[in-house]
Amino acid sequence: MIKVGIVGGTGYTGVELLRILATHPEAQLTAITSRKEDGLPVADMYPSLRGRVPLAFSSPDKANLNDCDVVFFATPHGVAMAQTPELLAAGVKVIDLAADFRLKDVAQFQQWYGIPHTCPDVLHEAVYGLPELNREAIKSARVIGNPGCYPTTMQLGFYPLLKAGIIDASNLIADCKSGVSGAGRKAEIGILFSEASDNFKAYAVAGHRHVPETVEQLQKMCAAPVNLIFTPHLVPMIRGMHSTLYAKLTTEISNEALQELFESTYRDEQFVDVMPFGSHPETRSTRGSNMLRIALHRPANGATLIVLVVQDNLMKGAAGQAVQCMNLMFGLQENCGLTHVPLLP
Amino acid sequence: MIKVGIVGGTGYTGVELLRILATHPEAQLTAITSRKEDGLPVADMYPSLRGRVPLAFSSPDKANLNDCDVVFFATPHGVAMAQTPELLAAGVKVIDLAADFRLKDVAQFQQWYGIPHTCPDVLHEAVYGLPELNREAIKSARVIGNPGCYPTTMQLGFYPLLKAGIIDASNLIADCKSGVSGAGRKAEIGILFSEASDNFKAYAVAGHRHVPETVEQLQKMCAAPVNLIFTPHLVPMIRGMHSTLYAKLTTEISNEALQELFESTYRDEQFVDVMPFGSHPETRSTRGSNMLRIALHRPANGATLIVLVVQDNLMKGAAGQAVQCMNLMFGLQENCGLTHVPLLP
Amino acid sequence: MIKVGIVGGTGYTGVELLRILATHPEAQLTAITSRKEDGLPVADMYPSLRGRVPLAFSSPDKANLNDCDVVFFATPHGVAMAQTPELLAAGVKVIDLAADFRLKDVAQFQQWYGIPHTCPDVLHEAVYGLPELNREAIKSARVIGNPGCYPTTMQLGFYPLLKAGIIDASNLIADCKSGVSGAGRKAEIGILFSEASDNFKAYAVAGHRHVPETVEQLQKMCAAPVNLIFTPHLVPMIRGMHSTLYAKLTTEISNEALQELFESTYRDEQFVDVMPFGSHPETRSTRGSNMLRIALHRPANGATLIVLVVQDNLMKGAAGQAVQCMNLMFGLQENCGLTHVPLLP
Amino acid sequence: MIKVGIVGGTGYTGVELLRILATHPEAQLTAITSRKEDGLPVADMYPSLRGRVPLAFSSPDKANLNDCDVVFFATPHGVAMAQTPELLAAGVKVIDLAADFRLKDVAQFQQWYGIPHTCPDVLHEAVYGLPELNREAIKSARVIGNPGCYPTTMQLGFYPLLKAGIIDASNLIADCKSGVSGAGRKAEIGILFSEASDNFKAYAVAGHRHVPETVEQLQKMCAAPVNLIFTPHLVPMIRGMHSTLYAKLTTEISNEALQELFESTYRDEQFVDVMPFGSHPETRSTRGSNMLRIALHRPANGATLIVLVVQDNLMKGAAGQAVQCMNLMFGLQENCGLTHVPLLP
Repeated sequence: MIKVGIVGGTGYTGVELLRILATHPEAQLTAITSRKEDGLPVADMYPSLRGRVPLAFSSPDKANLNDCDVVFFATPHGVAMAQTPELLAAGVKVIDLAADFRLKDVAQFQQWYGIPHTCPDVLHEAVYGLPELNREAIKSARVIGNPGCYPTTMQLGFYPLLKAGIIDASNLIADCKSGVSGAGRKAEIGILFSEASDNFKAYAVAGHRHVPETVEQLQKMCAAPVNLIFTPHLVPMIRGMHSTLYAKLTTEISNEALQELFESTYRDEQFVDVMPFGSHPETRSTRGSNMLRIALHRPANGATLIVLVVQDNLMKGAAGQAVQCMNLMFGLQENCGLTHVPLLP
Repeated sequence: MIKVGIVGGTGYTGVELLRILATHPEAQLTAITSRKEDGLPVADMYPSLRGRVPLAFSSPDKANLNDCDVVFFATPHGVAMAQTPELLAAGVKVIDLAADFRLKDVAQFQQWYGIPHTCPDVLHEAVYGLPELNREAIKSARVIGNPGCYPTTMQLGFYPLLKAGIIDASNLIADCKSGVSGAGRKAEIGILFSEASDNFKAYAVAGHRHVPETVEQLQKMCAAPVNLIFTPHLVPMIRGMHSTLYAKLTTEISNEALQELFESTYRDEQFVDVMPFGSHPETRSTRGSNMLRIALHRPANGATLIVLVVQDNLMKGAAGQAVQCMNLMFGLQENCGLTHVPLLP
Repeated sequence: MIKVGIVGGTGYTGVELLRILATHPEAQLTAITSRKEDGLPVADMYPSLRGRVPLAFSSPDKANLNDCDVVFFATPHGVAMAQTPELLAAGVKVIDLAADFRLKDVAQFQQWYGIPHTCPDVLHEAVYGLPELNREAIKSARVIGNPGCYPTTMQLGFYPLLKAGIIDASNLIADCKSGVSGAGRKAEIGILFSEASDNFKAYAVAGHRHVPETVEQLQKMCAAPVNLIFTPHLVPMIRGMHSTLYAKLTTEISNEALQELFESTYRDEQFVDVMPFGSHPETRSTRGSNMLRIALHRPANGATLIVLVVQDNLMKGAAGQAVQCMNLMFGLQENCGLTHVPLLP
Repeated sequence: MIKVGIVGGTGYTGVELLRILATHPEAQLTAITSRKEDGLPVADMYPSLRGRVPLAFSSPDKANLNDCDVVFFATPHGVAMAQTPELLAAGVKVIDLAADFRLKDVAQFQQWYGIPHTCPDVLHEAVYGLPELNREAIKSARVIGNPGCYPTTMQLGFYPLLKAGIIDASNLIADCKSGVSGAGRKAEIGILFSEASDNFKAYAVAGHRHVPETVEQLQKMCAAPVNLIFTPHLVPMIRGMHSTLYAKLTTEISNEALQELFESTYRDEQFVDVMPFGSHPETRSTRGSNMLRIALHRPANGATLIVLVVQDNLMKGAAGQAVQCMNLMFGLQENCGLTHVPLLP
């Protein structure tokens, strides 16, 4: 059994990790830290876990994280990089669900997150945890920067096209929509039920932290310079993410060939489902599962290709993907503990 | 034109007052105070009011509330009683939407609200602002304690029965359900979208502040001692309140007579709608309006009578009722500025 | 492996059965019938099941239900009783999720469901499938009448009290609230998103089919005649059921003793969670799982006891409970395939 | 008083017309037809209208529509064109909220709506009812084709740019999101609460009827051939529409000049609100009102301009706009009866 620690388990990615790990056959949760909630049984904060997670939160100094095999950070940006060097020295692997190990470019990191990076050497070693595009590196990694939720959909949606060199990389548009849980479990007015319900809006159109991460990764897929317009929106639903991606084809290609390109790219992937051409994937078809679904559209058979991508932002977009990485790092079946069937309705 | 001031207009009852007053033909908003938002145009906080409410918030010291004809307090408990004596001295009438002037019993006030009452003489003079039960007193009042949302439904639902002396006053049950806006516009975890959506729960079953207020008022309607079980629940909707009231009949009486009792009681009321016997009123049938609807049920024609009551908690349950009181206090038509048709769907 | 057939898998209890069975380690779905959808892959109707349920719907004549070990009926009332005698003759066990085998009193059945019962002998043999109250009979049953969703909460909530003889059985009130999926997957105006969202209402207050079923079962728990007032309400959420039960205590008893009564009654139950006295269980704490949670309240330590009960109406209220019965009938661990951790948020 | 008739008032645009007309100071509803609901009081179907709309539905043969001054058609496509010639002959003006008089090109009409146009001469005379772009023609029109909801947002969003000739008309993308009421009040599985809630999806990406209408109108604004990619999505909210429009600038132009272009274009419009550059308009800021709000964004000051447009799909997107047209046709103030303040929260 893999001994697992969680730092900062009071947020939504934290409780989602707990939900997954509670039934993971090869992992055992041994410590979960929260400075503020020291001593509080996890199930008192999350009654959904009554009888399923017997642990209590403990303050970081009491939790013996160094005895874990792997520690997940479900914390605000900046926490993981402060603690990772010591954990690595103790032989503990680290998976950070925040952004500390996502951006290779430290200047970009400082610009977008407003703090200097405190361990650039660890960052240099860290592996970007998107298994479908980076599986081998993840297997041998000691430190994982788990991808952002939006970037996961944009990368898996654009990848076959950029790789094949058949779209204009300088003209990518991603019109993305996220459920409210993506904003985290924070006491903020804007995500109150009475504010976010029965409402729809765009946000952060002027610039969102997921842009530099996505562009850095997309740029690896092609030689031409990538330019990305990214427009996030808030949907009155708890979970779910829907990205509507627009790309301009630069080659003559049939719809069948486009479909085949996607199907062959993801044929062996357990968590990527390429639906029939012209499908309309629904976010709920992934609810509570680690699946990501993709469908292609080409209005009037013109030059604009539309790629629709859906996932559960807390699963494939966060905690599920992190466990998928853990499985790879410890030589387990990639879908171990991740076989949840989506909850519908 | 009546000159109106609002203290504390940043919450949901505040913005609802603004919505009503923006089209009220006989009232003009002249000041709105907020210590924190001094100088901020109201429409910057609430874009729904762009072009409709040209005022900015001002700090209390700058706003000349003494020049108003009436001031509404849409503030936390305790604020109104601190400022009311000075306003009264300046000839300004006061309508408090919080609890400062609801409970005549100061000991009860202190017990339930945790602060001593600072102006018991004003409290003594204050009138409980439920127009259907207290119209004449409201007309000549200088200070109004505007009823709580739940108490409004319980009083109007039980009143005809208690008055007629045909139910057991010592055995009243009110199983009530409120939309989330009833909890106010506060940055609290429990009312986040991701917490309150797709969920249902009871809360404060051990004791809620609306109990003493309701019992004090119900007790006026009958000689027998009133005993009330009150169970509030949180519904994943923005606005709306549904009270399911249970009473034991103590007399032989036909359903027709019961229906006639309610219809005759409220025949002349513009904001109370007695629906046909056996109806199922929906909260949305009152959304955005000052209407309260009532329907009677009597399962198996037995001794238990069920009274269903719905209203919009921010309107008849708060701001609408306050303006209804204002209209009475200033000799206007009672429905002046309150003719909104419910928004459905 | 148990060979499982499903009749009528296109509704919400049907797809929930599919979700459970897709990961059940001891059961294998071998046939799923739908006259209308003959030939349609299940995953085409429910994309959430893509890659998880490889079957297609087949018309009843093609499906070899007689080869199954057990057949679930997730059909409208009347279908199961038409097909059960033949299945029994072929040695197939039957679990009906509709009402055909719930009511022992055929006159009551005919009165409430409007059709005569076509196999009263099978009905006589049928076992009411509430494992916590009827475990031994279920183990050896050939035919199960799976309880209604509301009745499950009312029975498990009132049972310890009626059994102990400490409440007035003639004065029970159940104020119940259900998510919209309880109304099924039918094209009806009243359950459209634009009708049911941001709204709350009672329905069927004059009489609901779950009353006779519940009373028949409650009556078994005590000698005194049971009288039940049942008021169902519709909550704008997909899944979840919250029952607020009111009972009058007829004995002096401490809150500790009441709590102990419930805890000892359900100590060995894996799917009944008695929460600490005074808790407020949330429906979402059971979402997608087979758990039912109970909490006690006693306002002002008076004679009225409030029992709060929550469950997922599609799981413990329907499909989960049916699989729990199947597990018992086939000698499996009772929680086999039912270890889902609730999905929160 | 203008005598108003409504054909087909049982849907959502119909009840919204009723809500508006109930408080319109210059219009009187004199007839409302429904073949199916003949004799049913309108308030029995819509309790929100109890006491506000005293009329009953009547079958078309009984309703004297010829006595009206104007008749609104809130019917499926095809109904208005069948009845309009007779009404015109009787001197009655017609406003069709469906598509019968939107598309000037009858071949396009037949292609997209699957029926031939039965009165092309009336179509030729009909005026497209978008007041901001077509005010003078509307004033003297006898027949109005009221715009679709999506087309209203796309036209008002792209118009200043196309008119000024500063974007590439052949490369327009409209990623649009609508509340569920846009699908109408029809008993269909896909818009059930349990299907549409907590979910997000695109639909009709391969081709939507609002494309030809929009292109026909956009083409009037510029010489260059218009090409439009239109992707509609379904949002789990009742009302509200959010269009995210992408255009490529073809000229050097400052953000200030872009903002000024929009502000000057709509300076005198009562129902178009150009918000400050970089704002994120929320759909709820228009809920229940006839307002449409626009905001501009320009990521990284590049060549892609984003125009965000929000409206209430039942108001400015349907019934509100229709009444705005009626006001113009009868020489009333354009905002007569349309002064609703948006309902927020």
